Amino acid sequence: MRSGGRVKVPPKLLSFLNEEDEFLIATHINPEPDAIGSSLALSIALESLGKITVLYDRDTITEMYRFLPGCEKFTNSITSPSLPLILLDCNSLERAGIEGMDFTYSAVIDHHETEKDFGDIKWIDPESAATGMMVFYLLKELGVRITKDIAVNLYSAIAIDTGTFRYSNTNAEVLRVGAELIEAGANPAYISKNLYETWSEKRFTLLIKALNTLEIRDNVAITFVTGDMFKETGTGTEDTENFANFPRMMKDIKISAFFREINNNYWKVSLRSKGDINVARIATLFNGGGHKNAAGYEIKASLESAKESLLTRIIQ
Amino acid sequence: MRSGGRVKVPPKLLSFLNEEDEFLIATHINPEPDAIGSSLALSIALESLGKITVLYDRDTITEMYRFLPGCEKFTNSITSPSLPLILLDCNSLERAGIEGMDFTYSAVIDHHETEKDFGDIKWIDPESAATGMMVFYLLKELGVRITKDIAVNLYSAIAIDTGTFRYSNTNAEVLRVGAELIEAGANPAYISKNLYETWSEKRFTLLIKALNTLEIRDNVAITFVTGDMFKETGTGTEDTENFANFPRMMKDIKISAFFREINNNYWKVSLRSKGDINVARIATLFNGGGHKNAAGYEIKASLESAKESLLTRIIQ
Repeated sequence: MRSGGRVKVPPKLLSFLNEEDEFLIATHINPEPDAIGSSLALSIALESLGKITVLYDRDTITEMYRFLPGCEKFTNSITSPSLPLILLDCNSLERAGIEGMDFTYSAVIDHHETEKDFGDIKWIDPESAATGMMVFYLLKELGVRITKDIAVNLYSAIAIDTGTFRYSNTNAEVLRVGAELIEAGANPAYISKNLYETWSEKRFTLLIKALNTLEIRDNVAITFVTGDMFKETGTGTEDTENFANFPRMMKDIKISAFFREINNNYWKVSLRSKGDINVARIATLFNGGGHKNAAGYEIKASLESAKESLLTRIIQ
Repeated sequence: MRSGGRVKVPPKLLSFLNEEDEFLIATHINPEPDAIGSSLALSIALESLGKITVLYDRDTITEMYRFLPGCEKFTNSITSPSLPLILLDCNSLERAGIEGMDFTYSAVIDHHETEKDFGDIKWIDPESAATGMMVFYLLKELGVRITKDIAVNLYSAIAIDTGTFRYSNTNAEVLRVGAELIEAGANPAYISKNLYETWSEKRFTLLIKALNTLEIRDNVAITFVTGDMFKETGTGTEDTENFANFPRMMKDIKISAFFREINNNYWKVSLRSKGDINVARIATLFNGGGHKNAAGYEIKASLESAKESLLTRIIQ
């Protein structure tokens, strides 16, 4: 899919987008800026070519990501008859919460490794830092002008998935695309402020509570948030976004595991690792998944046994 | 100093560097990666042209910045006779701690606004995101090949001064230079890890203690570290670097004030602000100083009265 380091868009995908007139664009549940921004950028682009798009997400766009231009267009009810589907930043209907629905045709655009065999056209490039990078090249091939709204969406998509150019998926190509998006109207400081400096006071209070639970065992940092902590602070699970990353600041920490109680004794676990440590493999042992350095799973257990079962798998 | 958005190097500076054979390169006290990286990059470059350089800093390079290639070359004693001086990332002898010394000739390369009238050649460009950006263009003009060691130093310089491409000084030019430095051998993830993920466990414990002191008054976040907290955790004032920035994550916080006790009832205060709020002006009222969004001062008082005197000045 690559020639000279640059992503090559499959010709079949270009024909599909050129030939059809109306699309359903769907992305994964709990959407973050790569999902939202890639979908919005593609929607704006296709509409500029005279197409009609319906943007679907099962979950509401969380308050902090509503600065993304056009995000009010997302719906979680589909009334149109069966349409051609473009699935972004995920590669299965389950991940988008639309299993069982019918589509006349389907294309998948994703940078996660394939887990499911879905899609008439599958464009999956795990070497792309973000789905936003793939959409950027796609829009170029479609001959779409990168407007300011497209640029803000794609820049945000790439920023979130590279930790604003800090993770190991950051390369020269990513920075060059970033530069082009800035020239098209994306403001890096405005986007960073929206991504990182819009915490509510109660969310920050919850973070402090979570950090107070820190326990370090053999280079693994464990933190947690209980249902009671959510209640005391008036927060919800969406407020714990990014909490798992804080303990990574410590030099000797190789894995950060963050547990949040989404129901009584039912935990959602986020794993973050450094370098070559593959937490996706660990998450898979618990029927979860993700990327090498960022993965997750769910487990029904007491906190203590959830922690222990994880530590046992890590030490193995 | 600019044409077409690109920095223009003064011809006088190029002649000076080409004509002399030996240089003293000095930078500011308490050096951070823009100071260290710019100086090292220029030193490596000049030596590749057959010149001799002596690298001076009054203060030792702190442990966390010793990943910068060549940093062991810094000395804080000058035994050579009077040399031509290149002053980097500052623009006065006082700021470098070398007031009273003599130089045969002097050139200043800096992106801070001029405060002092010093230097036979003054190349000061406040529009440059980092002194590292200026040195990058200077090396291009000198025809020096950007080696891996130069690239790591310059990328780190630019990364620290733009908050790794998050601050308002980030623009397309900065990302393009970043891309070129990556191609020359700088590894963004390795550099970010060294800049942001090398905290000791005790430093992280101190951060949690500091965050537990959070008090919010009229959009001002106040946190502190007492002498006892340093003792309990076995940490020192250098471990509090960056602590003042955390409360900025909250949307409604306009100023973050962080107090650390450097002696019994003697406090060093760091102020951080967002947007147009000028904390340098507030710091000046206490005989301190700094930049618009990052300033500081020292005060002898009890914690309570130190806090109150600050809040009174802010609300004024």
